[in-house]
Amino acid sequence: MYQKQQQDQENDLARLIRLLARLPGLGQKSAQRMALHLLKKRDVLMLPLSDALQSAAHSIHACTICHNLDTEDPCHICTDARRDRQVICVVEDVADLWALEKSTAFKGLYHVLGGSLSMLNGHTPESLAIASLLTRCQQEPPRELILALNATVEGQTTAHYISHRLQGLGLKITRLAQGIPLGGELHYLDEGTLTTAINSRMLVG
Amino acid sequence: MYQKQQQDQENDLARLIRLLARLPGLGQKSAQRMALHLLKKRDVLMLPLSDALQSAAHSIHACTICHNLDTEDPCHICTDARRDRQVICVVEDVADLWALEKSTAFKGLYHVLGGSLSMLNGHTPESLAIASLLTRCQQEPPRELILALNATVEGQTTAHYISHRLQGLGLKITRLAQGIPLGGELHYLDEGTLTTAINSRMLVG
Repeated sequence: MYQKQQQDQENDLARLIRLLARLPGLGQKSAQRMALHLLKKRDVLMLPLSDALQSAAHSIHACTICHNLDTEDPCHICTDARRDRQVICVVEDVADLWALEKSTAFKGLYHVLGGSLSMLNGHTPESLAIASLLTRCQQEPPRELILALNATVEGQTTAHYISHRLQGLGLKITRLAQGIPLGGELHYLDEGTLTTAINSRMLVG
Repeated sequence: MYQKQQQDQENDLARLIRLLARLPGLGQKSAQRMALHLLKKRDVLMLPLSDALQSAAHSIHACTICHNLDTEDPCHICTDARRDRQVICVVEDVADLWALEKSTAFKGLYHVLGGSLSMLNGHTPESLAIASLLTRCQQEPPRELILALNATVEGQTTAHYISHRLQGLGLKITRLAQGIPLGGELHYLDEGTLTTAINSRMLVG
């Protein structure tokens, strides 16, 4: 009887905690805290979240052209007639696309790789959307291809790999400027950033 | 058309991110990362999590005796004949009950207050399960009441308040030992803990 009841509890509550603990950045303790928080907010958070997960799982799909996530395929960016179809911005992840969209500085199309090359994480060129980028550039060569990859070893390795693969097509390939971030204070910045900022210094006025 | 499509996307993905961002310890960025992670693991994580939230929201309830969370009411601890019904351990939260259960050091019953007294957070005696603790102690006075509250200002204030309210009943009220935690290194411990450990020092052997 005791065993059975405990098992019942394990099944529903423990399953919830186990699944929450598999979310990125969460461990056992934070998953427990989250489960208790959710149970305190059943109607305003727990059930709406269950519903939102269900809906999004069914309605959100990767765009077959650029691999952005959207309810439509092709996505609303690829089908937007007001965007510059001659410029493609290559990003690692959809989160990077969101960040660039929020800046409103870019009005072209995107190509989401789905990660960066990494021997450690087993991310080979085949596991990223690099082949589809090549096909896209061959079929409809853009005026410019912006490699907006992270300023990490993996991101820069990926940028090198892509520009190497695209060499024969004669495309204009650019990358994001590197330097001091807005609001950056010199004494908090690392030597690498400062070296780049000195070497890429610009004329005033 | 563009507006509509963007709105569709906002509705499903943005709603998911908005709800995830309301979980404790998460912000906008981590909620975005979580949403992308979930969309990558639709079948193994996203849909099971939706289902687990739904099930737990309906099956897990607070025990009417001790306020533990369980599929049964009274909970499996309150109905367990093998536990010592003469000892009640008062804890702030269900997470504390779980931690004590994991230690297997306690085999009595619990009483979950649902928080601690805090002027700042608006936690008054009425918002905690203190009245039901008094009723419980009056109806069936336990041999011992252990105040297993956090060693924080709020926890200790709550312990004082409860022992004050129970004064007339002539109960044996205890609290957890304070001192150096297992594996604790003296030079990392705060002065308060060291003072307590010195003052409550014990005879060896």
